Amino acid sequence: MTDLPTRITITEEGPREGFQIEKGPIATADKIALIDALSATGLSRIQVASFVNPKLVPGWADAAAVVAGITPRAGCEYTALWFNARGLEQALGFRERLALAGSITFAASEAFSQRNLNRDHAAQLVAQREMIAVHQQAGLSPTRLSLQAAFGCNFGGEVSVAQAMAVLGDAMALAAETGCTIEKLSLADSMGWADPLHIERLVGAVRARWPELGISLHLHDTRGLGIANALAGLRMGVTMFDAAVAGLGGCPFAGHPGAPGNIASEELVFLAHEMGIETGVDLDALIAAAELAERIIGRPLPSNLLHGGTLSRFRKAA
Amino acid sequence: MTDLPTRITITEEGPREGFQIEKGPIATADKIALIDALSATGLSRIQVASFVNPKLVPGWADAAAVVAGITPRAGCEYTALWFNARGLEQALGFRERLALAGSITFAASEAFSQRNLNRDHAAQLVAQREMIAVHQQAGLSPTRLSLQAAFGCNFGGEVSVAQAMAVLGDAMALAAETGCTIEKLSLADSMGWADPLHIERLVGAVRARWPELGISLHLHDTRGLGIANALAGLRMGVTMFDAAVAGLGGCPFAGHPGAPGNIASEELVFLAHEMGIETGVDLDALIAAAELAERIIGRPLPSNLLHGGTLSRFRKAA
Repeated sequence: MTDLPTRITITEEGPREGFQIEKGPIATADKIALIDALSATGLSRIQVASFVNPKLVPGWADAAAVVAGITPRAGCEYTALWFNARGLEQALGFRERLALAGSITFAASEAFSQRNLNRDHAAQLVAQREMIAVHQQAGLSPTRLSLQAAFGCNFGGEVSVAQAMAVLGDAMALAAETGCTIEKLSLADSMGWADPLHIERLVGAVRARWPELGISLHLHDTRGLGIANALAGLRMGVTMFDAAVAGLGGCPFAGHPGAPGNIASEELVFLAHEMGIETGVDLDALIAAAELAERIIGRPLPSNLLHGGTLSRFRKAA
Repeated sequence: MTDLPTRITITEEGPREGFQIEKGPIATADKIALIDALSATGLSRIQVASFVNPKLVPGWADAAAVVAGITPRAGCEYTALWFNARGLEQALGFRERLALAGSITFAASEAFSQRNLNRDHAAQLVAQREMIAVHQQAGLSPTRLSLQAAFGCNFGGEVSVAQAMAVLGDAMALAAETGCTIEKLSLADSMGWADPLHIERLVGAVRARWPELGISLHLHDTRGLGIANALAGLRMGVTMFDAAVAGLGGCPFAGHPGAPGNIASEELVFLAHEMGIETGVDLDALIAAAELAERIIGRPLPSNLLHGGTLSRFRKAA
């Protein structure tokens, strides 16, 4: 009846996604405190910084200081994001702290490609070919492929499964040509357009064409369907999800400031645990980290579970 | 692969659920304005008032004035709630405006029965037998059965499917004995304990035992799983849902003040429409009604879609 996995891996993106969109400035020490609180929950992957142009994303001007300041915890992989050679160079300076992997990024929507990646799909193919070479020279031949706006776009409208598959086809052909072995494909609902059936259709199409690929879902809860979309992913046997503590995040280029961000990590963990799926995360500790995030940001964050509270206290009392 | 329905019916409970929990006072004129805005969206059922003891639920001291003040719209059924003979009498005074139906109410948790219904299960059986007689004398032989705390309880902890089925068995036996024909069973996750698998198990158990019963789900989004639980219901072919505009509501006796309330009607409508399921509701008009609700209540309400915004404007622009 279902392909529910027995265990999932969550990549916590709250620090990276959350701190980039907040008007800030958020103190470097607060960023470090939240990351250390998150690693203490049992999360096995945390994206801790973005090595990007501080003129474009001022919230990450202190990326190096944050990475240098955290207390690495055994069993937790710390990852970072970058989009160009300069960013890669900065990340390489933290080889001993960060789990570095080369990645290829495309957008399924032309309009989002132009707005978020600064070039259209054809130009992005050229640019990514160059970036692959840069990564390979650094010994980081890309193993990951990310597809942004995989389900729809605030600027370009609907994204059909066929359109997403065509962009993925180009990306996979580029990977093959350049000798990259893609192991993990991230399908990102960057602006909250997905619904459960769309998740099923796109995941199904990818599986049918590239059965060897691990699929990861990056979901936003912009319009309230985020956790239902995660459920659809679980039903399809997806075992890798991105999420952000307290529902931090949202894309600075997505055109809806103030809209809810990524699916809340604690809601995803709660969904999984209630359905008997392991995450390795201590939910009560994660809710405490969400409370810390809310104190740091200084306004109510979107997570319902953060405000509704855990069931464990009621179960203990019963 | 799925039993997805082609159409669902939503009972809008925002006015009744929302106005009872807010500290208020909310002006009678505002309540009426919201109800009239809701009926203009195409919603076919709206619960507009609760005929309850104003000392216990002061927010509904003006129930009669609200019912008298709304502008009835053809094609929309207006319903109300009551729990005793006095409440029924008040409701009967509005026979021409309200769609009245007798109902039987139980709680699956003893602790919740005592707290919310003011008596334990055994005493509730006695009390409901009396209420059935009162309703039958008024020509309203109960056709509806509601099970509160059907999935768990903040005061009593877990509620197993077996426990819920035992209480339902007693209730259905009482109905049969007293000559009531129950057509609709409402399973209420009063305090946000349900998960998608629990929804499937309880709905499945009810279907197997009473295949003739129409099942309605009353879901709260206390911990962020509300829409995922609605998806599980849709997958099981459930066609009747309660919801509250903007995510208003929450139970005044549930023990977590400030927690998110019912699933947001506009998120449920959005989920349905994106999956090709009809609701008869104009989503943009419903989001406008949610904005009105937020202005009336005077604080941000929990619905993500209310803040993330509709897709229709992006689709039109694309």
